[in-house]
Amino acid sequence: MAERRRTSYSVHREVLDEGAVDVMAVKSEPKTSLKDKVKGAMRCSGPRMKSCLLGSVPVVSWLPRYSIKENALGDLVSGISVGIMQLPQGMAYALLAAVPPVFGLYSSFYPVLIYFIFGTSKHISVGTYAVMSVMIGGVTERVAPESNFMIWDNITNSSIVDSAALDAERIRVAVAVTFLSGLFQILLGLVQFGFVVTYLSEPLVRGYTTGAAIHVIVSQLKYTFGISPLRYSGPLALIYTVLEICYLIPKTNIGTLVVSIVTIVCLILAKELNAYLSKKLPVPIPVELLGVIIATVISWQVDLNGRYGVDVVGEIPSGLQPPVVPATSLFGQVIGDAFALAVVGYGIAISLGRIFALKYGYKVDSNQELIALGLSNSFGAIFQCFAVSCSMSRSLVQESTGGRTQVAGALSAIVILFITLWIGRLFEDLPKAVLAAIIFVNLHGIMKQFLDVPALWKSNRVDMLVWVVTFILTVLLNPDLGLAAAIGFSMLTVIFRTQLPKYSLLGQIPNTDIYKPVEDYDQVRHIPGIVIFRSSATLYFANAEMYQDALGEKSGIDITKVLSAKKKLEAKRKRQEKKAAKKAKKELQKNGGHMTGEPNMEQQKDIAIIEMEFEPDPSLPRAIVLDLSPVNFLDTVGVKTLKSIRKDYGEIGIEVVLAGCQTGVVDNLQKGGFFNDKVTKSCLFATVHDAVLHCQAAKTKSRRDDETEYITLDSDQEEIKATHF
Amino acid sequence: MAERRRTSYSVHREVLDEGAVDVMAVKSEPKTSLKDKVKGAMRCSGPRMKSCLLGSVPVVSWLPRYSIKENALGDLVSGISVGIMQLPQGMAYALLAAVPPVFGLYSSFYPVLIYFIFGTSKHISVGTYAVMSVMIGGVTERVAPESNFMIWDNITNSSIVDSAALDAERIRVAVAVTFLSGLFQILLGLVQFGFVVTYLSEPLVRGYTTGAAIHVIVSQLKYTFGISPLRYSGPLALIYTVLEICYLIPKTNIGTLVVSIVTIVCLILAKELNAYLSKKLPVPIPVELLGVIIATVISWQVDLNGRYGVDVVGEIPSGLQPPVVPATSLFGQVIGDAFALAVVGYGIAISLGRIFALKYGYKVDSNQELIALGLSNSFGAIFQCFAVSCSMSRSLVQESTGGRTQVAGALSAIVILFITLWIGRLFEDLPKAVLAAIIFVNLHGIMKQFLDVPALWKSNRVDMLVWVVTFILTVLLNPDLGLAAAIGFSMLTVIFRTQLPKYSLLGQIPNTDIYKPVEDYDQVRHIPGIVIFRSSATLYFANAEMYQDALGEKSGIDITKVLSAKKKLEAKRKRQEKKAAKKAKKELQKNGGHMTGEPNMEQQKDIAIIEMEFEPDPSLPRAIVLDLSPVNFLDTVGVKTLKSIRKDYGEIGIEVVLAGCQTGVVDNLQKGGFFNDKVTKSCLFATVHDAVLHCQAAKTKSRRDDETEYITLDSDQEEIKATHF
Repeated sequence: MAERRRTSYSVHREVLDEGAVDVMAVKSEPKTSLKDKVKGAMRCSGPRMKSCLLGSVPVVSWLPRYSIKENALGDLVSGISVGIMQLPQGMAYALLAAVPPVFGLYSSFYPVLIYFIFGTSKHISVGTYAVMSVMIGGVTERVAPESNFMIWDNITNSSIVDSAALDAERIRVAVAVTFLSGLFQILLGLVQFGFVVTYLSEPLVRGYTTGAAIHVIVSQLKYTFGISPLRYSGPLALIYTVLEICYLIPKTNIGTLVVSIVTIVCLILAKELNAYLSKKLPVPIPVELLGVIIATVISWQVDLNGRYGVDVVGEIPSGLQPPVVPATSLFGQVIGDAFALAVVGYGIAISLGRIFALKYGYKVDSNQELIALGLSNSFGAIFQCFAVSCSMSRSLVQESTGGRTQVAGALSAIVILFITLWIGRLFEDLPKAVLAAIIFVNLHGIMKQFLDVPALWKSNRVDMLVWVVTFILTVLLNPDLGLAAAIGFSMLTVIFRTQLPKYSLLGQIPNTDIYKPVEDYDQVRHIPGIVIFRSSATLYFANAEMYQDALGEKSGIDITKVLSAKKKLEAKRKRQEKKAAKKAKKELQKNGGHMTGEPNMEQQKDIAIIEMEFEPDPSLPRAIVLDLSPVNFLDTVGVKTLKSIRKDYGEIGIEVVLAGCQTGVVDNLQKGGFFNDKVTKSCLFATVHDAVLHCQAAKTKSRRDDETEYITLDSDQEEIKATHF
Repeated sequence: MAERRRTSYSVHREVLDEGAVDVMAVKSEPKTSLKDKVKGAMRCSGPRMKSCLLGSVPVVSWLPRYSIKENALGDLVSGISVGIMQLPQGMAYALLAAVPPVFGLYSSFYPVLIYFIFGTSKHISVGTYAVMSVMIGGVTERVAPESNFMIWDNITNSSIVDSAALDAERIRVAVAVTFLSGLFQILLGLVQFGFVVTYLSEPLVRGYTTGAAIHVIVSQLKYTFGISPLRYSGPLALIYTVLEICYLIPKTNIGTLVVSIVTIVCLILAKELNAYLSKKLPVPIPVELLGVIIATVISWQVDLNGRYGVDVVGEIPSGLQPPVVPATSLFGQVIGDAFALAVVGYGIAISLGRIFALKYGYKVDSNQELIALGLSNSFGAIFQCFAVSCSMSRSLVQESTGGRTQVAGALSAIVILFITLWIGRLFEDLPKAVLAAIIFVNLHGIMKQFLDVPALWKSNRVDMLVWVVTFILTVLLNPDLGLAAAIGFSMLTVIFRTQLPKYSLLGQIPNTDIYKPVEDYDQVRHIPGIVIFRSSATLYFANAEMYQDALGEKSGIDITKVLSAKKKLEAKRKRQEKKAAKKAKKELQKNGGHMTGEPNMEQQKDIAIIEMEFEPDPSLPRAIVLDLSPVNFLDTVGVKTLKSIRKDYGEIGIEVVLAGCQTGVVDNLQKGGFFNDKVTKSCLFATVHDAVLHCQAAKTKSRRDDETEYITLDSDQEEIKATHF
């Protein structure tokens, strides 16, 4: 450190304005035109085609190079572990999506296989995901509400739900929205729109998933308590549902509640044990699978359903379903939800994928990921899957149990296939409350995200605001609308941040060329007679007026007052001159037409008085340096503002120069008509110090110039008068 | 110029990092806390109260100082001229608002008087305005459509419109929306929300008024052709209306069309004459008034209404209307429109007011203007006016005929009062087609705004896009929704502009401390071994990923590749070391437990090989300087990006330093946890040149350091091995 300080900074050169820089550094002409760029992008060649093809089916490039020795064991263990996790999660998330549990198993199989072929992330576990499932649940329950499927039961003489028809319709809806969201993802991927995910900043995604988790919890409470609340949709649905549940709590099915509580407590204890033993065990204990098996056995033996009225999973068809064509007639009703699903699913998958890519030093291609997910969803939908993304908890297991490539995912799909084909039926007695308990325990990680709020409060208040607003909007407006509103809000924060900049006067750190805000440092000094002004943000339409106001306020120059005072003086001057001219005329007539050409003594005195008054206030600075280095771009309003500042202050004798403009900003100025015959690039300086040196050097000179100007002006007017006579 | 260049720039100092700057310039503690600031803002004192009161009723401060000698004559002439213009314009714009013409006269009277008391602009002519009127027309015709007022006429045996009831209802609607928009304006003014107008950038306002003018024209075509098309509302209403009009054109009333054409031709000719004579006439000829008078006389004499079926103005009640309470029951239906009216009315008035204020060197207070307009509207609404703003054409007449203060406006209101009370009735025979013609001719100025498009194409493409999109949205979505969409779009452009920055590598202009983009200049040189990278925009969530990608691409360092190569080497190294250790163990056993502590020859060779491979690629740069001077703020994503860049490149032996951070950015870094024990402010440099000098000086030193590190590492491992044995 001490050694470093000894490095000395020594520069000796001429003061450089932008024009001089252009000459010195030889400004080059733009080399490639837009046309060439388009041509370059459209160019089609053999190697290009090949790399494009390989890029779109990544499995072709990495599978042949798969090293069995290095990866096979890890992938196998990891694949089986993840497959075992997929079983209870898939069934539980199917409940969230309001479709029968077996469809969660399908969704854990087809899409995973497709992703294996097209995906680029080696560690994420594609499949059912709580947030996506709850969003689908919102759609299915809105488009196919229970009330549409009431039939009259002759036995009990009351209307009951025709659950077979209801389930069939809900599956149709889920398939339609999934297919459409897959199409959206493919489309976005093809037009290279992967960058949309950049709008999903981290605080936004975390606030959003936390808000969605609240929806997940509320939608599962009915299984925990064994009640059947009405469904609400639209904004504030969550609030109404919670009120409804509170109202129905006295009707709780005690058996179901006991099952729920026991399962939750056992799962939490088992997970703690797992965490405690994590270093000693090669593979974590599949607590969820054990829970499901034990619960099923107990339920079957005790006949929980028949004796205590505990709701169970019910019939699970063996084998796979034949492919169906998605119901295009539903597309119109679900198009908005499909788009939201496409964006959210992609956003979650890519952010998780990037974390692992960074950790293991490879790259995920955001556009290819979009296409892979899109194909998984649309192809999966044909086989009656609902929309998938990737799950945090499963992906962590996949990674920690030694998974190294997408092969682990493919193996987990095979495990699921095996279960679906042969073992699935055994779970028909599983209480739904157990699945709800699994969901609750799995939300543990997301709930930890509430700790972001105090952390962000310390590090960045605006980001905390984004988190909190996203969370509230998601909870109140439902996940789909909430996401749109939250993205809108997070963009507004960018506007606000640039719109409410900090304006400061800069001063010099003594004996250096460095200028820092005067209010932040005690030992920086004002340059006498020169105001150096900087806005912390870009100058554009939303803050142009404030820029002008702040300049006036900070520099202490009330430009309108000074200008109007000057105008009044000028008017007075004109009147006095008129009077003087009249007098001169009279005298001329008195002198008998003899024109002296020189004003007499009295006139000279008058003019002297006016000139004295006209002299700019000595308390005013002689120059203003606008430091534009934080400016990213200028729009027409920005250019006009700078122009008018130069003009206004110029009129009262203050020179305005700009410093530190980027190349793009200089272009904006040029195209915006800032420069003309009088204003050239010589009023732009490379650094603030250059500008200050120029102003200091110009000071004495300009004072002389000004006087010369006055003299010229006076003699001009004399001339005019002379010709008018 | 030549003289200026001779000013020389000479600096000799130590290289300064941010820590050194803090010490040297003595960074000061923040002086005022948020609490003090709030206290300061809430402080209440006598003089403060007085200035606040004077500020809210400006007439109290300027009227007593009114100089009759200087201003009275100009104000009188200007007031009468503007009053005469208000008459035909008020009646014409009432047609636009779909209310009887006399209400246009009321709207030219009450609001003008209120503005006289509360307004701060001396030159704008408050009153009816085409764009506002067409917006009100949209509301009245939507809430009170003709179809609701059909009655059965026993005489003709067909259903006709009950126009009395229709007019009464439409007036109720217009009054309600006007009152509400006035309330919005007062409210916005009280919470100091005048700055919202900053979102209405100039290209947006001009595109918007042009689009609104198209609506004005289309809504007047029915009077020109004497047809009665159906009314459409909602998006695309304009298109449907135009189609409907085309369909109805064969039913044109020939008499009306003749009146329209003759009036338009005469008005255009008269206006041209006016422009031609403008320098010779002290006051322009009131062509519109003359047109109205002549048309009325002809219509009355020829009985255009009875003989040719030309639609005329009809009954005009004498005198003023008693005040009424606005229909609060309608507020719910018109709240959105009222807000749009409030924003648009204010936006137009303030932008015109500012132009004159700049020209004459006084100040308009944006919040006070909001309150003044709000009072004008809400108070006017009680007397059955519709929403007002200010008209460009009238304001220009008011200024050019010598108006100097708000007194001119008050006098124009008195002229209108006089006409309303005594002369109004005379205009009952005036054909509505004449009023439509007046509107068309007055739109001439707005239509000229189409020329903005080629001008903006040359100066600023993004602003041109804003203009065009605003225009299209306004035309297609109607003025209210169009405005909201256009504001949304113009904000998006800000995001896009910062989101798609230009990334460049900087090079040094030889023999200076100035760094410019290499691609823009031919004579700037790369500093060997140092990459200097700059993004033209702020670094935040929407472009953080691109920043990383661009850095990799521009610097030519494939960080993931280098990192994974390094990881592989490390793994290999570990394996080899294990092997070596095994061998050593074997040898140890062979040597009979005698531990030499020194690896034998073979081992040394192995380690040497690994070390050679481990040495970073010599083609890689040794340091990266990130120029952050264009960064306005950093969010958490931005800070994390910088952190990960430092970490990743650090791992492959490239030092990353930052240069040119603003004070606020340093704060962001600090709060965001960028600094820790190892990373201090010494990696932040005041300028790029400082950073470069530091890196050059550190180069040789660091190479030595690195070697030392390897040696330390090796001996460490030797020790570990030694203890394990």
